[in-house]
Amino acid sequence: MGLIPRENEFFVYFEKIAQNVVEGAKALHDLMTDFTNVPEKAKKVLDLEHEGDILTHEIIDLLNRTFITPLDREDIHGLVMDLDDILDLSEEVADRLVMYRVTAPEAGAVKLVEIVLASAEEVSKAINGLRNLKRSRRVLDHCIEINRLENEGDRYSREALASLLNDTTDALKVIKWKEILETLEKAIDKCEDVAKVIENVVVKNT
Amino acid sequence: MGLIPRENEFFVYFEKIAQNVVEGAKALHDLMTDFTNVPEKAKKVLDLEHEGDILTHEIIDLLNRTFITPLDREDIHGLVMDLDDILDLSEEVADRLVMYRVTAPEAGAVKLVEIVLASAEEVSKAINGLRNLKRSRRVLDHCIEINRLENEGDRYSREALASLLNDTTDALKVIKWKEILETLEKAIDKCEDVAKVIENVVVKNT
Amino acid sequence: MGLIPRENEFFVYFEKIAQNVVEGAKALHDLMTDFTNVPEKAKKVLDLEHEGDILTHEIIDLLNRTFITPLDREDIHGLVMDLDDILDLSEEVADRLVMYRVTAPEAGAVKLVEIVLASAEEVSKAINGLRNLKRSRRVLDHCIEINRLENEGDRYSREALASLLNDTTDALKVIKWKEILETLEKAIDKCEDVAKVIENVVVKNT
Repeated sequence: MGLIPRENEFFVYFEKIAQNVVEGAKALHDLMTDFTNVPEKAKKVLDLEHEGDILTHEIIDLLNRTFITPLDREDIHGLVMDLDDILDLSEEVADRLVMYRVTAPEAGAVKLVEIVLASAEEVSKAINGLRNLKRSRRVLDHCIEINRLENEGDRYSREALASLLNDTTDALKVIKWKEILETLEKAIDKCEDVAKVIENVVVKNT
Repeated sequence: MGLIPRENEFFVYFEKIAQNVVEGAKALHDLMTDFTNVPEKAKKVLDLEHEGDILTHEIIDLLNRTFITPLDREDIHGLVMDLDDILDLSEEVADRLVMYRVTAPEAGAVKLVEIVLASAEEVSKAINGLRNLKRSRRVLDHCIEINRLENEGDRYSREALASLLNDTTDALKVIKWKEILETLEKAIDKCEDVAKVIENVVVKNT
Repeated sequence: MGLIPRENEFFVYFEKIAQNVVEGAKALHDLMTDFTNVPEKAKKVLDLEHEGDILTHEIIDLLNRTFITPLDREDIHGLVMDLDDILDLSEEVADRLVMYRVTAPEAGAVKLVEIVLASAEEVSKAINGLRNLKRSRRVLDHCIEINRLENEGDRYSREALASLLNDTTDALKVIKWKEILETLEKAIDKCEDVAKVIENVVVKNT
């Protein structure tokens, strides 16, 4: 009797956390595509990251209090940590844009933020599908799309760095953007890590 | 009856994949030691990487279709992924040499490519020894040599970066070569990861 | 009868190794806060790192010869490797200070070395508490402090890099210090990895 409500609780948390990751990516995208009120917009990403920390704390607490879990304990832990990392890295990008006093975006970084946002949305859809693994085909399709986005991001990132290196003589600018591009790439990689855990969950449960 | 042929299939794949990694390292070495027809030579590394992707796909497919495997499933998976990474990183170096419009090699990078090639050759010899673990002493000797090469590479890489930082005033050049040196170091690290899996396989099987 | 003495042997090694890590951090701190006799002081860090390698080799050897271990085999292995990494990274910082011909410390790097030292001291205290897990509350308090120091280090590191990027026009100097700051951050991260293993050990044993 008590099993199903608690099972539901986990999925409610997953969905909230994933939605919050999407909100964080959107806030970063807003900042990167319109460089006005930068500190304010960066603050919004930071607030969402704090919201994510609270949700993470709550679901880990629930995990520690629950004997029978709807997914393997280590998979729940892995998913939660990876989702948290996506938001942490998004916040790190926003923070660097402020601290490096960036005044205009680089084209390559804008493309990468678009990929972060698209990946986060696919992550959220895949997470929403965990409730009903009978439709696992759809869940796996979102995972495939996340992988495709990661490859695309990898290519954009290499090209963006090469463009910077070839087109500017300002080495300090290159160092700043290289750091930002790498942080964006890590956020995209974390989305791929989420997809790997989900694929694994699907394989074990179908 | 059906067990031995399939066992053989795995080893045939391992050997092909390792040989392909060696070919990739050779192609990168050709490029780094003679900077003519750079895009053409980089294309050759890319073609070998694609060849590797196909072989990787095939052996993972074989793994999924096979119930009793000659090595632990996770070791096969680990070996295949690490071997694939060596080639991916070799390709990444070749790609960056083209994209950064490099016209002459740095002495330190040439040394590191030599270590990538030597490590890949040792990896291939160690892999070839997996068929006959009764001669495990030889397999372990190759692993020890891979570890030695990794230490040597680490030292060269540190020195090469320091030389660049002390000998040039061109910061953009330093950023480019730092990125290339780090990618070469990662390729050497992946050879060491292969050695670790093989050492583990030997310990478990003798 | 033979169990307790051998158990004791492991704890003696852990404590020696952790103390050696503290000595290494102190030697690095001495170097970073007083830039005189730099190669000599860097040599001291290197000597301590070699001492650590010997201790690591000995405890791994003991582990391989021992059937029943006081902590899970994988936890012992993990602790030893992470402790070794802290010292390796401390040595890497000292080595880079020599190789990059650094003549004066950056304020941000000094702060980070202070955190490396404080974290190493907390690590040593937590390790010393492993003998008596009945007082696990104290052990966990040291782990919490290590986590707090890691967060602080992360913040300092970001700020130090931003200061460099905003306050100097010397890109080569930025590249050098960025590398040093990142290596210090990795050393602090490794202290956090030790804390994670210890927290896990406490959870499993109480």
